[in-house]
Amino acid sequence: MNPIVPEFTDIENAHQIVQKYAHRTPILTSKSIDEIVGGELHFKCENFQKVGAFKFRGACNAVFSLSADDAQKGVATHSSGNHAAALALAARMRGVAAHIVMPENSPEIKKRAVAEYGANITFCKPTLQARESTLAKVVAETGATEIHPYNNFNVISGQGTAAKELIEDAGEFDIIIVPVGGGGLLSGTAISTKKLLPNCKVIAAEPAGADDAFKSFKSKILVPSENPKTIADGLLTSLGELNFAIILDKVDDIITVSEESIVTAMRIIWERMKIIIEPSSAVPLAAIIEGKIDFKNKKVGIILSGGNLDLGRLPF
Amino acid sequence: MNPIVPEFTDIENAHQIVQKYAHRTPILTSKSIDEIVGGELHFKCENFQKVGAFKFRGACNAVFSLSADDAQKGVATHSSGNHAAALALAARMRGVAAHIVMPENSPEIKKRAVAEYGANITFCKPTLQARESTLAKVVAETGATEIHPYNNFNVISGQGTAAKELIEDAGEFDIIIVPVGGGGLLSGTAISTKKLLPNCKVIAAEPAGADDAFKSFKSKILVPSENPKTIADGLLTSLGELNFAIILDKVDDIITVSEESIVTAMRIIWERMKIIIEPSSAVPLAAIIEGKIDFKNKKVGIILSGGNLDLGRLPF
Repeated sequence: MNPIVPEFTDIENAHQIVQKYAHRTPILTSKSIDEIVGGELHFKCENFQKVGAFKFRGACNAVFSLSADDAQKGVATHSSGNHAAALALAARMRGVAAHIVMPENSPEIKKRAVAEYGANITFCKPTLQARESTLAKVVAETGATEIHPYNNFNVISGQGTAAKELIEDAGEFDIIIVPVGGGGLLSGTAISTKKLLPNCKVIAAEPAGADDAFKSFKSKILVPSENPKTIADGLLTSLGELNFAIILDKVDDIITVSEESIVTAMRIIWERMKIIIEPSSAVPLAAIIEGKIDFKNKKVGIILSGGNLDLGRLPF
Repeated sequence: MNPIVPEFTDIENAHQIVQKYAHRTPILTSKSIDEIVGGELHFKCENFQKVGAFKFRGACNAVFSLSADDAQKGVATHSSGNHAAALALAARMRGVAAHIVMPENSPEIKKRAVAEYGANITFCKPTLQARESTLAKVVAETGATEIHPYNNFNVISGQGTAAKELIEDAGEFDIIIVPVGGGGLLSGTAISTKKLLPNCKVIAAEPAGADDAFKSFKSKILVPSENPKTIADGLLTSLGELNFAIILDKVDDIITVSEESIVTAMRIIWERMKIIIEPSSAVPLAAIIEGKIDFKNKKVGIILSGGNLDLGRLPF
């Protein structure tokens, strides 16, 4: 049986919520990058989103979609990344508790960000098993609703609002490219794009060192991520089941890129556009630089997924 | 005798030219920075300007204000910084030659930027004397018009368009703060601001390690910069005479800041706003952080002067 996945009307409903709390982020272009690559690129800047990442859209929709009864028991997740901060802020905006399970070895900067948003943090050993068992305990004790970072109907619907805005604000596209990790952004983007622009291709870019989505897409069997290794630390996770079903149905292609191209693409965006993006955000431009997409004379939309990274540990 | 300085009508005329070729840069705000400092800050993002700095405004106005006869002989300057790139691009846009004298020890990245804009580069020894004598020779040989980076009527008029846009787009301000090096941006900002918002204070922020403007302003005697030392490499120059006359007449105060505050302010803007600014741009926020300006509950405009720096040599 196929899982129940969001449709575009779910994204429209999510947008009613998301636009009340999130930024409608700007779409930037760069003549200088267009000259380098020979195409027309439009960058949707989710690095300027609240908490510095698109993740706020999905977290916001999930938190504000809860019934009053469920909401007052709070929300919970395990995450060491942008989803934790996003869920913490969305919960604070609704005035409910956020319970975040974080591996004890999470970077200090991320622990601080989540704490600043007022979340209750529970630390655990840095293994998936410890994260899941600790979260189960927290949920049992509090009655909080678990909000998975990407394998969640309302999260996917929320993430789909980024592509919806991109198309509403910048018109038609030939290709839209996004990075893929767990597949929340990719699946939401595919639903919005295929509804609004049926002829636009939706392509995912993935680090070769974390190519579970590529393998899954090509084999049509969900392959978990095994010892992934990439500077794009937002893309280490395995695809979710809901996301995979949507991706198989609606995504045109998934292509992989090298670490070197990711760093080159990141540096080009920093230097030419004067904006800060995290490595995950650079993966789509890396795919263009590697020449793996036929985008010459095409209008291309790219979602820059976020801008959170440790400035003391840059790759250049 | 007082020198002839631009008035606001000159800035209005400059704007007719500048707006045809330059970006009307966005004005960004940051709730998170407002919370840290306790004021309402509006940042005019000249780091997003062409060539990555406000300098393009002045260069553009100077180049396009030349008569056809003068223009066809080209323009010339000595500079190792943003003005060189700005003049080169403005000249290319008008289809005339730019002759740039650069010290032979200029950073490779700056040499490349100027060369990419198609300028004729003449290298010289890295002394002011060599720069001036080499420029004189180039001007004698080519008949090009020298465009000084800041001590120039049309350059000042062009730089004043940034504050004009800031006020037109974001309304009234209590205080506008800009960094001061040679004084081009400061003098242009003061002319626009005092005309459009007579009650708004115009304050300059300057690194303590390059405090010639501070000393000149306090003593009312033009004091040249002596062995200046600061990470804010756009602010090493001495005030120009034209600029100083305007500054004495229209600027409310000049305050100095430490190197440590500049780096802290720069990091705050990078981390919270996800935009790349060069150290010079961080000097106004450094003044706010140091508590040297009474800005609580005030609406403050800051011009972020540029975003060009070597990403391989960051101070954090």
